[in-house]
This record gives sequence, C-alpha cells and structure tokens, in this order.
Amino acid sequence: MKTMKQAVDFELLAVDGAARRGRLATPHGVIETPVFMPVGTQAAVKAVKPEDVAALGAQIVLANTYHLFLRPGHEIVRQAGGLHRFMNWDRPILTDSGGFQVFSLAALGKITEDGVRFASHIDGSKQMLSPEKSIEVQNALGADIIMAFDECVPYPAERPYVEASVGRTARWAERCKAAHADTERQALFGIMQGGMFADLRRESAARITALDLPGYGIGGLSVGEPKELMYGILDVCTDCLPTGKPRYLMGVGSPDALLEGISRGIDMFDCVLPTREARHGKAMTSLGPLNIRNAGHAADFSPLDPACDCYTCRNYSRSYIRHLIKSGEMLGAALLSIHNLAFLAGLMAKARTAIEGGAFDAFKADFFAAYYG
Amino acid sequence: MKTMKQAVDFELLAVDGAARRGRLATPHGVIETPVFMPVGTQAAVKAVKPEDVAALGAQIVLANTYHLFLRPGHEIVRQAGGLHRFMNWDRPILTDSGGFQVFSLAALGKITEDGVRFASHIDGSKQMLSPEKSIEVQNALGADIIMAFDECVPYPAERPYVEASVGRTARWAERCKAAHADTERQALFGIMQGGMFADLRRESAARITALDLPGYGIGGLSVGEPKELMYGILDVCTDCLPTGKPRYLMGVGSPDALLEGISRGIDMFDCVLPTREARHGKAMTSLGPLNIRNAGHAADFSPLDPACDCYTCRNYSRSYIRHLIKSGEMLGAALLSIHNLAFLAGLMAKARTAIEGGAFDAFKADFFAAYYG
Repeated sequence: MKTMKQAVDFELLAVDGAARRGRLATPHGVIETPVFMPVGTQAAVKAVKPEDVAALGAQIVLANTYHLFLRPGHEIVRQAGGLHRFMNWDRPILTDSGGFQVFSLAALGKITEDGVRFASHIDGSKQMLSPEKSIEVQNALGADIIMAFDECVPYPAERPYVEASVGRTARWAERCKAAHADTERQALFGIMQGGMFADLRRESAARITALDLPGYGIGGLSVGEPKELMYGILDVCTDCLPTGKPRYLMGVGSPDALLEGISRGIDMFDCVLPTREARHGKAMTSLGPLNIRNAGHAADFSPLDPACDCYTCRNYSRSYIRHLIKSGEMLGAALLSIHNLAFLAGLMAKARTAIEGGAFDAFKADFFAAYYG
Repeated sequence: MKTMKQAVDFELLAVDGAARRGRLATPHGVIETPVFMPVGTQAAVKAVKPEDVAALGAQIVLANTYHLFLRPGHEIVRQAGGLHRFMNWDRPILTDSGGFQVFSLAALGKITEDGVRFASHIDGSKQMLSPEKSIEVQNALGADIIMAFDECVPYPAERPYVEASVGRTARWAERCKAAHADTERQALFGIMQGGMFADLRRESAARITALDLPGYGIGGLSVGEPKELMYGILDVCTDCLPTGKPRYLMGVGSPDALLEGISRGIDMFDCVLPTREARHGKAMTSLGPLNIRNAGHAADFSPLDPACDCYTCRNYSRSYIRHLIKSGEMLGAALLSIHNLAFLAGLMAKARTAIEGGAFDAFKADFFAAYYG
C-alpha cells in the first residue's frame, strides 16, 4: 500500500541519554531540533520585523489560532494567501489550536462534547470553537504544523475533571484528524493532556498516539504547578511517546525548563516569555538574568551580554537600552526582544552541539552554574 | 586673516524662483537640501531601528535637548561617546536647544534674563536651562548642528510680549555663540522669532544674522496659527535671511507646508508628524492621506501606496498593517513610520529634482492636485 507524502518528516540524528538531536523537514524548510519557537500571537513577533526574527536565528514561529480567528478573521488570512505571505515570513510556522486561549483568555461559556462556546476577549461577541472549526481556521491560516483542539486543564484540578478532559481531548483529536484533509500541506500534531496524574498522562498518550499523527504536543504543563512536579510528569509523558516523532512541550521558555525538557527528550518548545520579559526590561544573558532598569546600568556602556553577537549586543549599550526602556520607547522592547530570542536560539544551538558530542549533561550543568549560580 | 574651518559648509546648487537646491556638508556626511529631518526625540526615531531610518532615505535626524538633558542626562551621553554612538546612527544629527519644549512641555517656572526655571515633566524636579546650559548640554550630545536657546512665543501673543522675547532671544543667541567653543565640530544655528508681526520678524532676523552664524532657524511658526498667516510671515522671514546660509523651518512636516516652505526658500524641516500619524494608523500616500483603520482596508491586499518602494510597501499589505494597528501591535507603528518617513524623503528628493529642472511650481501643483485633490 502506497503511503501518502506527509507535510513533515522527522529524522533522529543523535541521542544522548534521553536528549535528542533531530531534524524536522517541513514545506517551508528544515528545522534543527531541539528548537525554541518564538511566539507571534497576532501574526507578528511583538515589536520585531520578520527579517530580524530570521536574522537572530529563529527557525520557526508560532501564531495563535484563537487570536487570528477573532481578528482579523481566518478568511482574511486565507484571502491574503495564508499566514506566511500575510506576515512576510517564509520559514516554517506552527499554529496552536485555540484551545489554550479559549480556556485562559476568553469569558468561558459552555464546554460540550461538540466544542466550546465563549465570549471574545476583544468585543464580548459570542463565538464557538470545535475540533472541526479549529481545523477549518488552521487550514485557512496555512501553517506547516497545526495542532489538535484540546481541553487544557488548569492547575490544580480534581481527578474526575481531568479524567473527563482526557477522554474529550482524545475524541476531539479523532475529529480533528477526520476534519484535516490536506496532510501533505500541513502536519496535524496531537496533544496529550492528563494534568498531574501519571496514569492519566499514560492513558492520554496511548489514546492520542493511537491516531498515528506526525508529532505530539504535551499540553497542560507549565500552568502554575511547581517545576519539580512538571519535570516528574514530563518523565512520564516522554516515556509514552514514540521515538520516531517530534515531541513538543507547549508554553515553556525559561532556560532551566528548556534544558530540563531537552534532557527528558523534548524536541520543540514555545513561549511568550523571552519577548514579554523584554518588554519589561528583562534580559537573559550568559551571566544570568539582568534587569536593565536597575540604576547600575545607567552608565554601563558594555553590551547586554559580552558573550552575545546578536544585532542588539553588536550595536547598543546597556546604558542606551536602559534609557529606551525607562523612556517608554518601543525600540527598547524591540532591541531586548531581539536579544532574548537570540539568546534562546543560541542556547538551543549549543544544546544541539552538546547532544551530538554526547556531552549534554555537562553542558546543562555548566549552564545552570553560570546562569543561576 | 585665516578663517577657521567651520563644522558645516553650505553650497547653493540651483534656484527656481525662491526655491533652493543646496548641499550641506557636515562632519557626519553631506545632506542634500531641501531635506526633511525625522525626529528622534529621546535619541530614537520612535519604533524604527536606525538602519531602517537610513534605508528609508533619511539623511539626518533630530534629537531633543530638553528630553535628553532630563533623561538619561547629557553626561551619560557624553560618556557614551556622544549621541551618534549612543543611538547607533552615524549620519548627521541636529539637536534643538530645549527652548521649545521648556515652553510647551514643562511646568514653566520663571523666565528671567538669565534663563528659564521649570519643573521636569517626568518627575517634577526643579530644573534650569539657560543659553550657556543649553550649549553645554548640546556640546555633550555632540550633534553636527546645534541650535541657539530661544524663547518660543505661543500663538496668539500680544505685541509687547513678542517684542520683549525678540530682544531676549537675540541676547540669548549672543550668549550661545560666546559659550560655544568648538565651531569646527558643531555648527551653531541661530533662531529668529517675532511671532506674527512682520516688523518684529525683520528685527529679529537682523539681530540674529548680525551674529554671522552658519545657519538660521525660523522658530515660532506652525504653533497653531492659520496656515495662510504662516506662509505670509514665512515670506517675510526668508526675505531677511542671507542666501548663502541654510534656512531651517522648525516643526513643520505636513506635505503642503513642506512644499510651501520650499517654494519660499526653506532648506530644512523637522516634525514629529509622520511618525505620530503612523502610530495612529495614518499614512501619507501618493494618492493622498489614508487611515488604515478604515474597514475598507480589511481585505485590501495592495500596499499602502502603489507608487512607493519602501520596505513596508514592498512587503506588507494594507490588510496586514490594518490588522497590526487594530491589534495594538507595535510592529504596525513601525511599518507605518517607515512608510511615512520614506514618503517625505521621497517627496523631498522629487522636490530637489524639480528645482534642478526649473519645474518646482509645476511639481508642487501636480502634487497638490494628487494629494489634496
């Protein structure tokens, strides 16, 4: 029986303990993994031009189905020729399913087996997202990787609710798969849930992986639980996932959680953290976190990070960036965003090299000593 | 007697009626005039990286002495190696004297012959600017062109007040000239005042030009008066200025006022208008002004201006820019700012070509018909 060509192809190049070095081919180019994906919530990485996002080393960006469904509307993006053309970004894009935002941003109406009714956070208008609708929207947006519509469980949550959501998320994933026709153009990833219950995580993984999708997201982590709890559950999750498919830990972007995730076999991450922190004047550097608003940087003419060669560090001093942030100049947020995203892109590149050399544990230990020391 | 080398050198290349085509050499490069100068109030053109400011055709930017004096403080900029290095801009810079902002932004304290006491608009702290202090600050900032500290008269103003301010502005200009030592590094321009009184404008011009400075600003126009009144006074002003020195009409940036100014012999302009309008979703185009928030642009996939080849128009649709502005994404302000500044840079370039060809009046008439038609 002839197998249809799939939109993505994942190749595992090396392993080092549980850490994986891979390569994910997509219709818009090849992604070296592990990879951090900058978030462009509303079809724009906040404050940064797409050329600058590419220049800082980003291989793929994420955009949010919930936001783009509400504004400008997926039909507008479809008419524009899809998200890549709309936002002037010709590298790979991943769209989430809208599930997380429906449960966290919108005024939640009713969750039924059919889907979720909610009120838009923009204008209060009554809206509906379902597995079929999420796929329709994501098909219109045209990202290389799209995500199944899931029910994201908050932390803490009682077991009966989590059990029910595991079942619903699995049934919704089946409906997403049935609704998604063009698997050569866009790869549909499943999402496992299960809250902080190891057995429910295993059950969710079993039900989602049974759909034989080209990749899997781990949802419902980094939602407020202690990090040690997250790492324990993550061990359970990655143990249940097939080795030949990419694994995406959703919503994680702090340096420690990225390296802990990689050490447990995660290949893909996304988070608004680096750009949100940037807008608040916070930089990630090789010497640890730095708050540019501190008075000590007022006459500091060195770059944010002496070990960084990003656009921001090549051209601007801490003194100037502090001035911009203190003055409310948008350029400050842009320069810090470029640096923070470059820092995470560089961290991922170093992690990939370490895995290739069988030295990931030592790399991680050295990084933690320097960053959190 | 040997003449000292001056920081700037102005050459008049062509005239067409009263319109002038010139070339102003500065320590950081040559400026083709007439020129529009984008404003980087706080040592940054709002939302736009300096490379992008250069790429859109800006020859020189303006920065504000009042703002930089208060924050980060001129000594910080001096330690950084001056404004050019601080803000990563290696083309010419002009700083204003702080006079206009003291009179318009600050909580005004007392105007004396010595200078102006005021309360900072940032933290309410008591501050003082005087001719000597303004020059000290501008020397520290290190712009190619610096401006004399003047008393900017509001509109409307009674004759006795304007008379007094003409005298004070002249005495302050003398003190600025005396305080400014390094005329090879920075050119000090005088500023004429005189409100809407033709004879006081003539008197102010006579007293300021008697100082034989390398250029002259026309202050106190575009402060709320009807445009026809401004143009009438402008005729008086340019008649009183020497032909061999550049003339700078301060605070003017609407397309009509730029062309009317050029037709009266103005060489330099600055205004926050193109970037401020951009942040409000307003574009200047070859077909006239455009408000990108209008619903009619929601599914319009053409560029802001079909006749424009700026970065924004080459890469983004009206639909996308409207989406960014409606969504409050900073990138929208950046893309519109790039376009509006490119539009004015292009307008000035076309004006220069028209003057060279002796066709400025026809160019102006054609532009007005297309833009305001």
